[in-house]
Amino acid sequence: MEGFGSRTTRYFQDVNIMVIFGFGFFLAFLKRYSFSSTGFNLLIIVLGVQCSILMEGLLFPKETKERDPKIITMAAVSMTAVAISSGAVLGKTNPLQLIVMTVVEIIIFHVSRWINKQFLQIQDNISMKHVHLFGAYFGLAVSSRFSEPSPRSEKNASTPKSYLLSMLGTLFLWVFWPSFNSVLADRDKTKAIYNTYFALAVSAVTAFTLSVLTTKDGKFRMTHVHSAALAGGVTVCYTAESIDYPWIAMILGLLASVITILGSFCLQRCLNPALKIHDASGVHFTFGLPGLLGAVAQVVLSVIKKWTISPSLGYMVMIYISDFCLTISVALITGFITGLILNFKLLKIIPVSQYFEDQFYWEFPHLAVGF
Amino acid sequence: MEGFGSRTTRYFQDVNIMVIFGFGFFLAFLKRYSFSSTGFNLLIIVLGVQCSILMEGLLFPKETKERDPKIITMAAVSMTAVAISSGAVLGKTNPLQLIVMTVVEIIIFHVSRWINKQFLQIQDNISMKHVHLFGAYFGLAVSSRFSEPSPRSEKNASTPKSYLLSMLGTLFLWVFWPSFNSVLADRDKTKAIYNTYFALAVSAVTAFTLSVLTTKDGKFRMTHVHSAALAGGVTVCYTAESIDYPWIAMILGLLASVITILGSFCLQRCLNPALKIHDASGVHFTFGLPGLLGAVAQVVLSVIKKWTISPSLGYMVMIYISDFCLTISVALITGFITGLILNFKLLKIIPVSQYFEDQFYWEFPHLAVGF
Amino acid sequence: MEGFGSRTTRYFQDVNIMVIFGFGFFLAFLKRYSFSSTGFNLLIIVLGVQCSILMEGLLFPKETKERDPKIITMAAVSMTAVAISSGAVLGKTNPLQLIVMTVVEIIIFHVSRWINKQFLQIQDNISMKHVHLFGAYFGLAVSSRFSEPSPRSEKNASTPKSYLLSMLGTLFLWVFWPSFNSVLADRDKTKAIYNTYFALAVSAVTAFTLSVLTTKDGKFRMTHVHSAALAGGVTVCYTAESIDYPWIAMILGLLASVITILGSFCLQRCLNPALKIHDASGVHFTFGLPGLLGAVAQVVLSVIKKWTISPSLGYMVMIYISDFCLTISVALITGFITGLILNFKLLKIIPVSQYFEDQFYWEFPHLAVGF
Repeated sequence: MEGFGSRTTRYFQDVNIMVIFGFGFFLAFLKRYSFSSTGFNLLIIVLGVQCSILMEGLLFPKETKERDPKIITMAAVSMTAVAISSGAVLGKTNPLQLIVMTVVEIIIFHVSRWINKQFLQIQDNISMKHVHLFGAYFGLAVSSRFSEPSPRSEKNASTPKSYLLSMLGTLFLWVFWPSFNSVLADRDKTKAIYNTYFALAVSAVTAFTLSVLTTKDGKFRMTHVHSAALAGGVTVCYTAESIDYPWIAMILGLLASVITILGSFCLQRCLNPALKIHDASGVHFTFGLPGLLGAVAQVVLSVIKKWTISPSLGYMVMIYISDFCLTISVALITGFITGLILNFKLLKIIPVSQYFEDQFYWEFPHLAVGF
Repeated sequence: MEGFGSRTTRYFQDVNIMVIFGFGFFLAFLKRYSFSSTGFNLLIIVLGVQCSILMEGLLFPKETKERDPKIITMAAVSMTAVAISSGAVLGKTNPLQLIVMTVVEIIIFHVSRWINKQFLQIQDNISMKHVHLFGAYFGLAVSSRFSEPSPRSEKNASTPKSYLLSMLGTLFLWVFWPSFNSVLADRDKTKAIYNTYFALAVSAVTAFTLSVLTTKDGKFRMTHVHSAALAGGVTVCYTAESIDYPWIAMILGLLASVITILGSFCLQRCLNPALKIHDASGVHFTFGLPGLLGAVAQVVLSVIKKWTISPSLGYMVMIYISDFCLTISVALITGFITGLILNFKLLKIIPVSQYFEDQFYWEFPHLAVGF
Repeated sequence: MEGFGSRTTRYFQDVNIMVIFGFGFFLAFLKRYSFSSTGFNLLIIVLGVQCSILMEGLLFPKETKERDPKIITMAAVSMTAVAISSGAVLGKTNPLQLIVMTVVEIIIFHVSRWINKQFLQIQDNISMKHVHLFGAYFGLAVSSRFSEPSPRSEKNASTPKSYLLSMLGTLFLWVFWPSFNSVLADRDKTKAIYNTYFALAVSAVTAFTLSVLTTKDGKFRMTHVHSAALAGGVTVCYTAESIDYPWIAMILGLLASVITILGSFCLQRCLNPALKIHDASGVHFTFGLPGLLGAVAQVVLSVIKKWTISPSLGYMVMIYISDFCLTISVALITGFITGLILNFKLLKIIPVSQYFEDQFYWEFPHLAVGF
């Protein structure tokens, strides 16, 4: 019990650092929105954790009081979804809208897990692995209901300093991602940690390489590094504890990084303008696509592993596929509806001219215009 | 033993991160004083830890060599008092004064704990919980002996960037506070962690809410978030391991946050001008008032818990009350005397015009005036 | 096994934070090179870890799959050498050169350990303690092949803000150094942690004191604090688990700090100009000299401890001395050769005018000249 408690509380803290500190600074890349990025992130995380604990108690009542620590850790893990979604609408929502979005999203996320459990017999900790996927597609659907900023907006920009703040957050996410994935692992937590590390390591190397190859004059682009270095962690989340050889994790890390950087080009040039989505911090290619890849990899790896046992194989594959299709569908539909709700006049929607602007929400000591 | 050692060293490190890193950046909110805030904090912490270990060995000799790790961890915990006090006189003391203050404060803090133990039979780790209270009131008493800066001082100001540095420190304190409180817990460390987390979560939400309600045009004020988000951790420190239901911790977190924000108005407008105290970083309402609330809550919760056992109840309440009254009195009186000592000419007191100024203590590469 | 696993993964993470986060920001003190400092550090660390694991598997094959976690942790530890070497040529190498240097250095480091093991019967984890020494002298030898920047270069300078970023990294290194040394400890990890802490604490105090005493007008110099506060950790690395009394660790910390600050004067004024070495971030006095001191201290302390057992004493002393002499010689010679290789035209060496410049490697959102 002692050892268990000690480990659980440690993982709880690691997840906490990730969601509070990592995401807070990861999203602080807009030059005039760093107060809101770090501050509102704290606000919605702590609010969401409380909601999440209530929902978990309501929907999964068999979890007794003994397992209390686990519930709280899981609540912190599920906050990743909210942090990711808030990234998709970064700078466009006021705190009231963010709070409504947080509460709605957390409720729907747990309901979606409950549906997966009731109808597809998916275990609790497996359905929890959809947290990135759910967050990304929910956020995207919400952001489709917000108008685009004017392309020449001065405020929707970064400075070297704000990129550096974001690098701080990225490095925190990077370093604590192995812990995050090991929280979701059921049996072999140590394996989950090292597989995640390998995937992240290859991701980071690939991110630098591809960035040089894809930019005009062979320079690195900071946003590539930020998003693609983390892609391996997202992808390997599903399979971290079941991968037996490090090289499989490394290939997944490589693919994740490739899909992220190619995705960032395709989405920003083709899909987003077509669908009129403005994905403020690129959550689609940072968390959405690598998450999809991870879910597919999970199916493929399970098929390879259980090739001989033919009868239940087709059934299992179908379950897995319906599992993540269901999750994405629920995320997209409810995200769209949430986007509509957030635009009710009651919530004091902010005009496009006030997007990406700290001064709208925070008192400033002196009106320091250029941060 | 292995498990014990592992846990102890981990908590030691968490406390270390809090005092070295958290407080260092928490106090870095002055635009021209960030070198000194982080640098001097490192200096006084490492100096104080060494003093504290000597004092502990002198006053509580029964702690044998076996328990060495615990002594060092406790020494790091007791440094919180010094870090808080140094916040009260932030920018007004030179390093020599800070060092003298650190040594005097640590000696007095341990003597005060020794008195509590000898005369009131208070256990070592309970008297250690007064660390915030002691630090705040000692610092306030010291700061009453320093002249106020001119209200129009350019230097006693923050920029968005220095606020962001302070946010970095605040988030570190926030994330590691549960560990801090669990170090002081005797039996149920896991419970202490989760109760502290709940209190902090509610504090943070309340901080944002009250900040909007109390400022003129409904904006957030960064200093409110910084101080009130941490208030719950201070308050629940006394009772973290004895609270059986999370909602009690949550109510304490709510009250702590309310008392901090209301306190910041009352103190800055009424009490401080009357007493001619200039509380440079608001330690009175950030650590003092929530600490008081925590001490009172400890008495109330003990009374409720042991209602039936009437004979010893009155005695116990009296002990608790005299315990924290004694601690505050000692802190105030000795702090006042220390303030007088610090103003001896021998210590090269700095003129008011040199307050809040890094360039007075640090070599600058180029004379970069506007940081 | 559970307890073991838990501890190992925790130390793995601590070392990770140190090398990824600590060194990344520690080296971010140049005003126009913070993207490269943090970004390239991530790149070479993750690349090097993968190389290191391959080399370890090749040269020390007896380490079976069971001990996998330990290999990865050791790979992360050995990255310290690369991070230190990259500090010596900071701002003068392009990413391609850095990658070549990383791969060559890691291979040579492991070969040097293998030689130590084969010919001097030095244990794996003892030869790993030369990591700082090897990194520093390898880096110095490499940097001797790079031309000096013009002394009036605007770019080879720091701003208060970049110093503050470096302070962030320094504090991270400082706080996690005890964990780092305990990873290399074989038996008594707890002792290693506390001895390292004491050495670091004394180092930090000495750093401030000597800085005041040695600068012209009695001010603190930030670079003194950055390098000398860490010196104790480097020195005590060799003996952290075998020191029985804290005061020995404290004296080593004091000597390390003294040697660092005096070294920084002597080297920068006498040795470096004579040898035409430009040590960009002072790795010689920050890691090299304290490392030497630590190696000597190890010999002296072993001699004192085993004074009575005369027969093997002389032999043991000789082994120790040849061990670190061999390591330094290998580092210097191969570093020199590597420096020659790095100046092949194939690697697109950068002109002196482009030294210390982020814009050469990174896309900038807007051409923000003054960071």
